[in-house]
Amino acid sequence: MRFAILSIGFELLIGRVVNTNSAFICSELAKRGHEVGREITVGDELTAISSELKHLIQEGFQNIITTGGLGPTFDDMTAEGVAMAFGLQVEENSLALQWITDKYDAMKLPLTAERRKMCRLPVGAQPIYNSLGTAPGFLFADGRLKVLALPGVPAEMTAIFQKNLEQIFPSEGRMHEREIRITGLPESTLATYTVKLMEKYPSIYIKTHPRSSEGKSEVLVHAYAMSGSDDVESQLDSLITALRSSVEKLGGRVEE
Amino acid sequence: MRFAILSIGFELLIGRVVNTNSAFICSELAKRGHEVGREITVGDELTAISSELKHLIQEGFQNIITTGGLGPTFDDMTAEGVAMAFGLQVEENSLALQWITDKYDAMKLPLTAERRKMCRLPVGAQPIYNSLGTAPGFLFADGRLKVLALPGVPAEMTAIFQKNLEQIFPSEGRMHEREIRITGLPESTLATYTVKLMEKYPSIYIKTHPRSSEGKSEVLVHAYAMSGSDDVESQLDSLITALRSSVEKLGGRVEE
Repeated sequence: MRFAILSIGFELLIGRVVNTNSAFICSELAKRGHEVGREITVGDELTAISSELKHLIQEGFQNIITTGGLGPTFDDMTAEGVAMAFGLQVEENSLALQWITDKYDAMKLPLTAERRKMCRLPVGAQPIYNSLGTAPGFLFADGRLKVLALPGVPAEMTAIFQKNLEQIFPSEGRMHEREIRITGLPESTLATYTVKLMEKYPSIYIKTHPRSSEGKSEVLVHAYAMSGSDDVESQLDSLITALRSSVEKLGGRVEE
Repeated sequence: MRFAILSIGFELLIGRVVNTNSAFICSELAKRGHEVGREITVGDELTAISSELKHLIQEGFQNIITTGGLGPTFDDMTAEGVAMAFGLQVEENSLALQWITDKYDAMKLPLTAERRKMCRLPVGAQPIYNSLGTAPGFLFADGRLKVLALPGVPAEMTAIFQKNLEQIFPSEGRMHEREIRITGLPESTLATYTVKLMEKYPSIYIKTHPRSSEGKSEVLVHAYAMSGSDDVESQLDSLITALRSSVEKLGGRVEE
């Protein structure tokens, strides 16, 4: 399954908040063998949410996870944005209304218009219970296309994600990976060898991360494959053995 | 000026690296009074880089900053991606070639094909010197449209950004801001008041950040405006005074 993530919130676009939600979701999807092909961040703007969702759908993404924009303030407009992208309206969802009513009853707070707004979901969406906050998430499906909307508050997002992901998007395997740290060789010297290894092991991707300027020459090499089978493990071992041998021949060092 | 950021690298889409580059750029642009309207992350894929650049241009963005994909490995393909988006070729840039030749001469390393690749830029692009690494950045301009390509290594990106930004994208003012922390009131209670304040002060945006679940009720309120004039400062003061007064009337507390 190929995923796209849509992060919503001006706090990300003014650099006030680092987008750890997106990194968390990407990492958790990778652990389950899923590939993420795009991440897009928009502000709290209805047309931006809707137009980027449509763009992602046009680009062929059928599994989209959004974060943010589900709360009680005027600029929480993810439900409306999703509805707009599909040419639908939002409507009060009775299950979400019950959850929200119960939560505010327990806090002895009245159900104001701002609070009630959180149970307005795109027509046909299923609400998803938020155990740590008030705003429900939701799942909107249209044929094979799924949009999972999660809150932006990291603890709430994480809790809903972990509880519901497997049921909505079943695992397809896992990420198989190795990492080694090489000193004494610049990334540009390694480049020829990593390309040859990728040709030999086409299911494995090798990414080199220079950690300092090339003069100092420390490079992290991350080799990984998404797979539903453990067969790739022995390929990873062979690849790392071959890489170690090349590094040593070239006068570099593999740090343990 | 309205900006878009295009971050390039599979390490972001597998959640191995948190996108601090994007947060840094957004924050630095905001400090200079610029607005960021979109951030898009793609993997190291030529067609993805090119198609998302075209998408951003279609969405009306005329100032685009990319990070990543400028190095010596096979999957560093930002220059080609930018060229492709504009229907152009890449060509060896003589100034970039001189810089790269000098750098590898100083390291007593030969100018291999992988190293030489870093001086291939879109036709018409200006190279930008990288004082901390080997791969030059570049600026590609097409009429009023500007694409500034920066490396992905944070130290290199930051250094090039700070040295060149003002000349390429002159400041338009700065971000004027206030932040207060409110306890004892849920975000959903504050929601009515922040909307009224934004109606009264239309140049100011108010974002509420609930820090914990609503039961515990701690909310950071961030009020800000991008402006070339300091007139907005007194408006921010008045807005905060009015908000404090509402919070106290409602039984909440403004923490110092």
